[in-house]
Amino acid sequence: MKILRTPRELREAVREARLRGESIGLVPTMGALHAGHVSLVQAAKRDRCWCIVTIFVNPTQFGPNEDFSRYPRDEAGDLARCDAAGADAVFLPEVADMYPPGSATVVSVRGLTDHLCGPARPGHFDGVATIVSKLFSLAQPDRAYFGEKDAQQLAVIRRFARDLDFPIEIVGCPTVREADGLAMSSRNRYLTPEARQRALTLSRALHAAEARFAAGEREVATLAAEIARILAEGRPTKIDYASIVDAETLQPVAGRIERRALVAVAVWFERTRLIDNVTLVP
Amino acid sequence: MKILRTPRELREAVREARLRGESIGLVPTMGALHAGHVSLVQAAKRDRCWCIVTIFVNPTQFGPNEDFSRYPRDEAGDLARCDAAGADAVFLPEVADMYPPGSATVVSVRGLTDHLCGPARPGHFDGVATIVSKLFSLAQPDRAYFGEKDAQQLAVIRRFARDLDFPIEIVGCPTVREADGLAMSSRNRYLTPEARQRALTLSRALHAAEARFAAGEREVATLAAEIARILAEGRPTKIDYASIVDAETLQPVAGRIERRALVAVAVWFERTRLIDNVTLVP
Repeated sequence: MKILRTPRELREAVREARLRGESIGLVPTMGALHAGHVSLVQAAKRDRCWCIVTIFVNPTQFGPNEDFSRYPRDEAGDLARCDAAGADAVFLPEVADMYPPGSATVVSVRGLTDHLCGPARPGHFDGVATIVSKLFSLAQPDRAYFGEKDAQQLAVIRRFARDLDFPIEIVGCPTVREADGLAMSSRNRYLTPEARQRALTLSRALHAAEARFAAGEREVATLAAEIARILAEGRPTKIDYASIVDAETLQPVAGRIERRALVAVAVWFERTRLIDNVTLVP
Repeated sequence: MKILRTPRELREAVREARLRGESIGLVPTMGALHAGHVSLVQAAKRDRCWCIVTIFVNPTQFGPNEDFSRYPRDEAGDLARCDAAGADAVFLPEVADMYPPGSATVVSVRGLTDHLCGPARPGHFDGVATIVSKLFSLAQPDRAYFGEKDAQQLAVIRRFARDLDFPIEIVGCPTVREADGLAMSSRNRYLTPEARQRALTLSRALHAAEARFAAGEREVATLAAEIARILAEGRPTKIDYASIVDAETLQPVAGRIERRALVAVAVWFERTRLIDNVTLVP
């Protein structure tokens, strides 16, 4: 497994892989890797890609009061996980390599960020779209892999990749969960054992909505009430949102669910903000 | 010379050129081609590039009260000029091909657009950066050619190309002028003969500033007064700006000129807005 530290090393490794006739698969991450990330590497390998994992805690996607400085970093553990998962290369740039002095360009996706995490995290998705654009240009992959757990992020990336004509297939991979249902997240390690128990209400609420939907319930109000009831049982510190939105436009659904819908929640336990979602397909 | 109408045809033509081992040179234009555009094609051919001219009147870089609908269009004349200049391909997409329904992504360059044309044309440079990003992704050129006449546009393009890691050399080409000094522009054809005469004050004012600078004058105030005096002789309908800015940051220079500076003017004659500039190198 190659360790690449600079954009130049990344470009050179990609060039060599191309000369060997490889397809390139990209797995952008912020490190603190867990089984969800591993599943993305495995998906790239199943697609017979030469798989590059990028590990970069991207400062531009954190707000001033967010957890950039305390975001978990574990290079040795991450490299071991990448190697075990079959990654071919890992790219670990410095902030100064990705944002040299004078950097001034922002990639923004309008509309898709009006709801869900957008209002609570101003600038977040601009930071995501900008860094992922840069990684796309540097690695020029054939395919790029992202978790469905970050549903709005996935929608934003699909949108700008199409709008900016990147010739890249965006592959969404199913959320990986702990045995008790908690969606895998690098931020789970912030939770106290007690808060972790309370956090199970996220997946329970979503699962309940799925079950009601499967049994024929189509009314947004009914499903939302059920979700709110279960979330409340977890005594959350704060609920940022518990929303049912159109799966493509991410605009709120009113009345009945007639098209693919995303049920998404963002909930705080103490200082930790967790998100989770399920998709309902009529 | 190949005529390419769709992004798919462009990608395919580029792929074939690559297989033949060609370097790709891109000349993005809005058509209504003149000798300035022709010089860009010639520069690409001197660099031994397979030269693609793109002709697209980009709606997102026009403000609501600007001249999008009346912007000159002359496909037959443009194709003849491209062919004569030695272009290898011309890409003429439709608006719906470049901005299909749902398009929502904007590329923005911050800071560089605070002065000069930025304030007078809100959204203009976002439109430029977005369409040029798209053309870069579609054509994947080795080099792209732009006129120095649009100095702020060139600075914005250099900036986002570096920031978004496009592996493309941005080549700026000298402004081409009429025999009497008027900078070539597709918008010159809007001018009445009388306004065209008055418009010669732009190049005269810039040339006078250059001459004073060459003679040792370094004071911004003195140079600015000289420029203002000559511009006034043209009885302009309105002066948007006549500014001396740092050539790299495009921030106003105060006091003395110690580093490369751009002297740039934007002046209206009736309903026509003209720009011109020179660079002063201490």
